[in-house]
Amino acid sequence: MNSIGNLFRLTTFGESHGPAIGGVIDGMPAGVKVDTELLQYEMRRRRPGQSNLTTARNEADMVEVLSGVFDGVTTGTPIGFLIRNTNPHSNDYDNLKHIFRPSHADYTYNVKYGIRDHRGGGRASARETASRVVAGAFAKMALKHYGIRINAWTAQVGDIALESEMTEEMLAETEKNAVRCPDSVTAARMEQLILSVKGEGDTVGGIVECRITHCPAGLGDPVFDKLQARLAAAMMSINAAKGFEYGDGFAMAARRGSETNDIFVPNNDGQTGDDRLVHTLSNHSGGIQGGISNGEDIRFRVAFKPVATLLKPQPTTDTDGHIVMSQAHGRHDPCVVPRAVPIVEAMAAIVLLDTLLSARAARI
Amino acid sequence: MNSIGNLFRLTTFGESHGPAIGGVIDGMPAGVKVDTELLQYEMRRRRPGQSNLTTARNEADMVEVLSGVFDGVTTGTPIGFLIRNTNPHSNDYDNLKHIFRPSHADYTYNVKYGIRDHRGGGRASARETASRVVAGAFAKMALKHYGIRINAWTAQVGDIALESEMTEEMLAETEKNAVRCPDSVTAARMEQLILSVKGEGDTVGGIVECRITHCPAGLGDPVFDKLQARLAAAMMSINAAKGFEYGDGFAMAARRGSETNDIFVPNNDGQTGDDRLVHTLSNHSGGIQGGISNGEDIRFRVAFKPVATLLKPQPTTDTDGHIVMSQAHGRHDPCVVPRAVPIVEAMAAIVLLDTLLSARAARI
Amino acid sequence: MNSIGNLFRLTTFGESHGPAIGGVIDGMPAGVKVDTELLQYEMRRRRPGQSNLTTARNEADMVEVLSGVFDGVTTGTPIGFLIRNTNPHSNDYDNLKHIFRPSHADYTYNVKYGIRDHRGGGRASARETASRVVAGAFAKMALKHYGIRINAWTAQVGDIALESEMTEEMLAETEKNAVRCPDSVTAARMEQLILSVKGEGDTVGGIVECRITHCPAGLGDPVFDKLQARLAAAMMSINAAKGFEYGDGFAMAARRGSETNDIFVPNNDGQTGDDRLVHTLSNHSGGIQGGISNGEDIRFRVAFKPVATLLKPQPTTDTDGHIVMSQAHGRHDPCVVPRAVPIVEAMAAIVLLDTLLSARAARI
Amino acid sequence: MNSIGNLFRLTTFGESHGPAIGGVIDGMPAGVKVDTELLQYEMRRRRPGQSNLTTARNEADMVEVLSGVFDGVTTGTPIGFLIRNTNPHSNDYDNLKHIFRPSHADYTYNVKYGIRDHRGGGRASARETASRVVAGAFAKMALKHYGIRINAWTAQVGDIALESEMTEEMLAETEKNAVRCPDSVTAARMEQLILSVKGEGDTVGGIVECRITHCPAGLGDPVFDKLQARLAAAMMSINAAKGFEYGDGFAMAARRGSETNDIFVPNNDGQTGDDRLVHTLSNHSGGIQGGISNGEDIRFRVAFKPVATLLKPQPTTDTDGHIVMSQAHGRHDPCVVPRAVPIVEAMAAIVLLDTLLSARAARI
Repeated sequence: MNSIGNLFRLTTFGESHGPAIGGVIDGMPAGVKVDTELLQYEMRRRRPGQSNLTTARNEADMVEVLSGVFDGVTTGTPIGFLIRNTNPHSNDYDNLKHIFRPSHADYTYNVKYGIRDHRGGGRASARETASRVVAGAFAKMALKHYGIRINAWTAQVGDIALESEMTEEMLAETEKNAVRCPDSVTAARMEQLILSVKGEGDTVGGIVECRITHCPAGLGDPVFDKLQARLAAAMMSINAAKGFEYGDGFAMAARRGSETNDIFVPNNDGQTGDDRLVHTLSNHSGGIQGGISNGEDIRFRVAFKPVATLLKPQPTTDTDGHIVMSQAHGRHDPCVVPRAVPIVEAMAAIVLLDTLLSARAARI
Repeated sequence: MNSIGNLFRLTTFGESHGPAIGGVIDGMPAGVKVDTELLQYEMRRRRPGQSNLTTARNEADMVEVLSGVFDGVTTGTPIGFLIRNTNPHSNDYDNLKHIFRPSHADYTYNVKYGIRDHRGGGRASARETASRVVAGAFAKMALKHYGIRINAWTAQVGDIALESEMTEEMLAETEKNAVRCPDSVTAARMEQLILSVKGEGDTVGGIVECRITHCPAGLGDPVFDKLQARLAAAMMSINAAKGFEYGDGFAMAARRGSETNDIFVPNNDGQTGDDRLVHTLSNHSGGIQGGISNGEDIRFRVAFKPVATLLKPQPTTDTDGHIVMSQAHGRHDPCVVPRAVPIVEAMAAIVLLDTLLSARAARI
Repeated sequence: MNSIGNLFRLTTFGESHGPAIGGVIDGMPAGVKVDTELLQYEMRRRRPGQSNLTTARNEADMVEVLSGVFDGVTTGTPIGFLIRNTNPHSNDYDNLKHIFRPSHADYTYNVKYGIRDHRGGGRASARETASRVVAGAFAKMALKHYGIRINAWTAQVGDIALESEMTEEMLAETEKNAVRCPDSVTAARMEQLILSVKGEGDTVGGIVECRITHCPAGLGDPVFDKLQARLAAAMMSINAAKGFEYGDGFAMAARRGSETNDIFVPNNDGQTGDDRLVHTLSNHSGGIQGGISNGEDIRFRVAFKPVATLLKPQPTTDTDGHIVMSQAHGRHDPCVVPRAVPIVEAMAAIVLLDTLLSARAARI
Repeated sequence: MNSIGNLFRLTTFGESHGPAIGGVIDGMPAGVKVDTELLQYEMRRRRPGQSNLTTARNEADMVEVLSGVFDGVTTGTPIGFLIRNTNPHSNDYDNLKHIFRPSHADYTYNVKYGIRDHRGGGRASARETASRVVAGAFAKMALKHYGIRINAWTAQVGDIALESEMTEEMLAETEKNAVRCPDSVTAARMEQLILSVKGEGDTVGGIVECRITHCPAGLGDPVFDKLQARLAAAMMSINAAKGFEYGDGFAMAARRGSETNDIFVPNNDGQTGDDRLVHTLSNHSGGIQGGISNGEDIRFRVAFKPVATLLKPQPTTDTDGHIVMSQAHGRHDPCVVPRAVPIVEAMAAIVLLDTLLSARAARI
């Protein structure tokens, strides 16, 4: 279905080439000053046409907030919002009406619903993620009250991976380049690769990494709503996501317990900057133990496949099952990863705020 | 919280050393003949003490079904069930009462709830997964009506990975060795590694791979309940899981669209054995496109960390924040992967059945 | 929260004097031809300013459908919709900004959220119900495929109650008078009463009765989602509703089992017009037994209190707790019942469709 | 489905004549001392065989708590519990195996699920409510921390209604007679009526009234989870319930706004015993305005029909649709109302606690 969250819940609607996309944010805590700057900043980070690395579709992505805010402050009532689709080139898709594009949702939507809006991918288009970024921005406004910060960046494009350990200084670099990699040298190589792949009419995959800092201990609701389970579901619901790992992730499969256990030590004089009794010397766990945050940084990574839409021709079938050639004329990203960075942050913020609110119910 | 699923929903309860664990299976479709053999078979696959690779705790894990079945057939009413804890050695844990074991849930449960049952890990113990296997067995009974089959196996232990592509013949080998790896040579090397690690008082991680065959196209509920999102949440809720990927997963980050797109071709004469109009030549997508199954095999992998409980001493803190040494006397698995195989299958079955039922609501 | 339903789910947003109200309909089955006529007809039935019995606020209540429909047919994706507020007189409410109006939600919203949009009652305004009527219209389009029909009417206004048993002929009369009472003589008396009460600056309560015909047996999900429990929750969520009863309702408290049991008899030659094996001679049960529809007409009644907004002065307190006089200058209904009729139908349709979809999951 | 509640959630299972009934209480706040006395007290109030007014089935209804409690204190983990069925007389029902008893759930369960456990009504038996009383007792333990008190009583049996306004002194009388009416004279007449009806092999309906005192203002989640909507759903899910009203309820249909508005006045010197700024002079609203508690007493009433099982013969059909005579040999209550009193309280407690926990999420 089209809702995520329990106490803080986003419901989205909208097709790529319909009149508008949008959603409802329910359970936004009352009393939060709305930071319009932040909202539009996040939208700009996700919007198409922001650089030569992204689709040429030019959408301003102006968010119209329709409810739930009064005198610039959230009221606790649902926030309805709208983003008009102003620049669809639906004709670009006329030739795809009767085609099942390879590795797209055309076939599966047809099988499930018996009908689909084929224009621009319809509901399956990544355009839907704009609504997620809106909700993520509101969640970030609330999380800010608790000092919680969420930062994602491009950790890999094709076979070019960021090698260095992330530092505060590096984080500040993330938004300075179009690929959103915090190391400018690696970023330049990634951009190079994306442009070269684009030139071939091809696409390339990558990895987004995310870090949540100053997250209080105690968030997450075992046994099925463990924090990592909620994060995984949120991330795997993003278009083109193929994998999720947290802490040391898949690498832990090859390791020993004695190498990966995180040793507790006293948090002397609050050296971590919070009032926890203890903290851990290492963070292989990625800030979550037993499905509940332990106060260390929460770290996770999301793998994205190469965009399925290619500008070079591919064989496929039409909706009658006959072999045809498919070739995109639409405007598409050669690599989703740069624009996925703010989406990953948004989904993380949505999950975190929901979990933070439910944690209030844990004790009498 | 302790429920998973919407139309087919499992709720579990129980601590490792309490009187019993169990749960309620709600939404089990009526009219399914209960296969008691299958139920106990699945329980045996998960139960402790089954081989020298697993914990020595000896639990028969006899399931008492308390409701929802009449004359050997499911009635559509909730299935309450119970597994008595018959072999707890709670005294093994007395010395851990005031200790936060490294990379365990001791600290986080204390922070969240202010109290915890420390015996055997309490609610955070993997013993809870026995209830999941019960529900998974019932789900499998229902899925069988549609020919859907779910098979998981050990794909990696430490740095020993199964290299060969899985075949039907190999699948039949999975249950023939204690490590549940379908290739007997690799299995032997894995067993060797686990025993060696165990001898050192250490533990080791690994990877479980799962394949769902004969899954109809059309399952999954975008945009937030995409099939992969549901599977990811279910898998990441299993104890010690650190990563999830489906199809070609993380490897797709390094690939091009032209390499990973799955080309549709006509399903001439129903060569796939079902009545789909088309099928795909490759399956990099892992059987899911746009969050909906496409009728190809669903393939995914789950990474597990090394068990945190070590038989060799480690420093940590007590509940007052003082440094102490921790050493387990309890009975623990040196590697969770062999026993995780049936748990992964169970969680997959739970998700699949729930999704199959909700797919019935897609059209008028 | 602001969502209702499980498989067919409505989420609403919007304040009375904000830019717009609207919502998202999720889970609308694919393949339903959208009946725009029906949609606008239902909106006209609920809209303000339709007669001298209702508020003078003049809203066209044009519904803008933003998604989920393609080529005039539902696609199974969420239906976002919007109704602009074109005729708010927010200044009418300036004097109420710091006042807790008697028996309104002013005080309770303030206590709960610490802030409220005071204009026109904000979120607590009955204007929100317009969104419910939109969803109800879509639900009706789907229910029509199964021949299910929902009709409500005004059964009581003040102390004037409709005495006669409802017939098909009478139902056809309901929409012919402004009060929506199917008996024209009683209707005239009711209108008289409402106008007289309105002249006094006062308001009056009433009862809406609803009948669902051709509802298949088997709908409802015991034990907590019994059909009557779902209907009760839906009805009691309507503004000003104070009571719900189904079948013979409260009157059954004074009766004997031998008087109120519904005797089963064979449905010879399908005399009921459906293929049930049996039917009942009487219908004290109101079409539901054990929480599940039995194929007879579903009958229930909803009591509405008099509107709290009076045009005559009343003492109350301001938001500082000081005694002040309150007098409405806004435009309000002297009696909600005539406009509640389509709202009751809408909520019934929403519940019915949701239940109909979930009933598909009952059996293997 | 068989769960109720969001943050505090009860899931029940079990058939009347199966091995056991029971459930899982999820979201019980940690840190509550378990009051075993209270638990068994509530069970005794509901259990069969407690007086000559109730069924002769003799069940001790001993509750076995299986999890979620450690050292006598709740841990925040789910509370699994069990009540063995020790005194079923399943043979009493052999003759009903192929019969649809009038106004029972036999027919509807058969239609919905295609199969049913006919013994003692199976899942549709009121025996299921024992699990609700368990959860209600735990909820009451938590609510006690906030001083919230819930009291229900028998307000009507047949045509004998309690006329007097309820006082604190009267409340203390409720449990002193078998019928649970706080006025001893009226109680005696009610008992007389029930015994007389029982002598005739007949049954009789009635009304339970409930009052929640010291409930803080601010509970309830508009617009669909208004407090009255949640209470209505909970009450209407109880076996034999036919109607719900709160505050002045159905009587308000005949009243004027000027008669039923509740005027706010200053809460001088905290005369209400709490720290609200204001309170109301009257309480026609029943303690809820706009779907949110206002701090006044919450008052509601639930109508129950006469029990459908009669000891005198009635015509009906068998499962082949042939006319047969039906006559109960089982043990049944001639009137459910006395035993419904603790069930109504339990359901109210479940809703209240859930709402109290979610209210914590309303503000930043």
